[in-house]
Amino acid sequence: MLIVGELINTSRKAINEAVEKRDKAYIQKIAKEQAESGANYIDVNCGTMVYNEVEIMEWLVNAIQEVVEAPLCIDSPDPKALEAGLSLCKFGQPMINSITDEKERVAAVLPLAQKYKAKLVALCMDDTGMPETTEDRMRVVESLYGKLKESGIPDQDIYFDPLVKPISTVNTAGEEVLGTIKAIKAHYPDVHFMCGLSNVSFGLPNRKVLNRLFVVQTMTLGMDGYILNPTDKGMMGTIAAAQALLGQDDYCMNYLTAHRNGLYEGS
Amino acid sequence: MLIVGELINTSRKAINEAVEKRDKAYIQKIAKEQAESGANYIDVNCGTMVYNEVEIMEWLVNAIQEVVEAPLCIDSPDPKALEAGLSLCKFGQPMINSITDEKERVAAVLPLAQKYKAKLVALCMDDTGMPETTEDRMRVVESLYGKLKESGIPDQDIYFDPLVKPISTVNTAGEEVLGTIKAIKAHYPDVHFMCGLSNVSFGLPNRKVLNRLFVVQTMTLGMDGYILNPTDKGMMGTIAAAQALLGQDDYCMNYLTAHRNGLYEGS
Repeated sequence: MLIVGELINTSRKAINEAVEKRDKAYIQKIAKEQAESGANYIDVNCGTMVYNEVEIMEWLVNAIQEVVEAPLCIDSPDPKALEAGLSLCKFGQPMINSITDEKERVAAVLPLAQKYKAKLVALCMDDTGMPETTEDRMRVVESLYGKLKESGIPDQDIYFDPLVKPISTVNTAGEEVLGTIKAIKAHYPDVHFMCGLSNVSFGLPNRKVLNRLFVVQTMTLGMDGYILNPTDKGMMGTIAAAQALLGQDDYCMNYLTAHRNGLYEGS
Repeated sequence: MLIVGELINTSRKAINEAVEKRDKAYIQKIAKEQAESGANYIDVNCGTMVYNEVEIMEWLVNAIQEVVEAPLCIDSPDPKALEAGLSLCKFGQPMINSITDEKERVAAVLPLAQKYKAKLVALCMDDTGMPETTEDRMRVVESLYGKLKESGIPDQDIYFDPLVKPISTVNTAGEEVLGTIKAIKAHYPDVHFMCGLSNVSFGLPNRKVLNRLFVVQTMTLGMDGYILNPTDKGMMGTIAAAQALLGQDDYCMNYLTAHRNGLYEGS
């Protein structure tokens, strides 16, 4: 299981304000809290800073690495910002968020993955737009996987993101993602997965309940990476419990630790 | 999805006391509450009444049917008590809980299933005892399925119970059940499933959390029947949310009804 902490993102108000004020202490606090809560990677996204994203990315990466030794997930629509972040990464293997099968994106991001030997989040979308069905997604997976292999990216560095969409809009949106996980597992058994969760519950009440249960459903089919808020006790407790039930936790030790750490209080 | 309400069982103290006092009103209250909470079947188990189980079974079945028109799941180790209950069932298709692949049990229960055209919970165990692995379970499934088909029991009346055991004792206990569901779905796509849940969490803290998540995991692989407490709002809310995520709830209507009925309060 690979957890990417999602909180350092300038689309979040508190982070945006901290960045505007260059409040390094706040950024570092959020980075530390995520690492201490169990994040394996810290996502760094300042994509809303359209005028000085490269400068902000450098500032964030340096600030975070002063206090946390977790590897970073450099997250940007701009290849220049990706390279600025990647070039400064000091700890472990960096991750790029993300590549797609769009022609321009492949041309810009694939060389960065090679140069920095980075793990790569690969979104199931291409120049034809967002996919609807499992078949749409698998067409992209097949095409993109071919390009990644030609470029020498090892399977274990590929993290396919099936693109989660709201079930409130299309009833089968969850089902299509589950079908995609099954199909990827069947055809490419050595690649990994990554996805965000909050889209699935958009427009519905009790979003946290739906998000947590969708983690359990996707884990049951083999999903092994999530970008989420690792300080959300309910979510982290759900993941620990699901791992124990799936036989991925010897003697239920991690589950019992999660219990002692209070992750199930109130549930 | 088929929910069997488990509360009318004389191994529960309150039910035992009500039966001893022939407190029909209490039994009827519990039956009504289960039906109103969404139970499709009401389980009737007085197996602890070893001296007069047949008489108590008759009393319970008649008492319940005075106030509830849900079909009944007649649950006993004693074929005489099964027949006593089945012969009185007035509403819908009755269910027998349970048959196994034990020689004596097959000989006693299969004729009752034929005579009363009953649905049949089929436990994955035989004269060699309780199974450990998926392979153990599938050997029983294959053997028992053969006998059921020879006797003319239609696939849609068969509810395989993979026998859930505690993950605290054997770490892979959950995984083996999930593997069994996958294997049964692959080989016998038209049969149904039934299981109890509380065993999985035996010996661990936060049992309700584990039980709920194991429902989500098993549903993801196709399990479609549970024997549980339908008045447990957390559990019933979990099932409704999981169905919405699996694309089994048009326009998320049932999920929104569950929300309005307060099933997610406090979660």
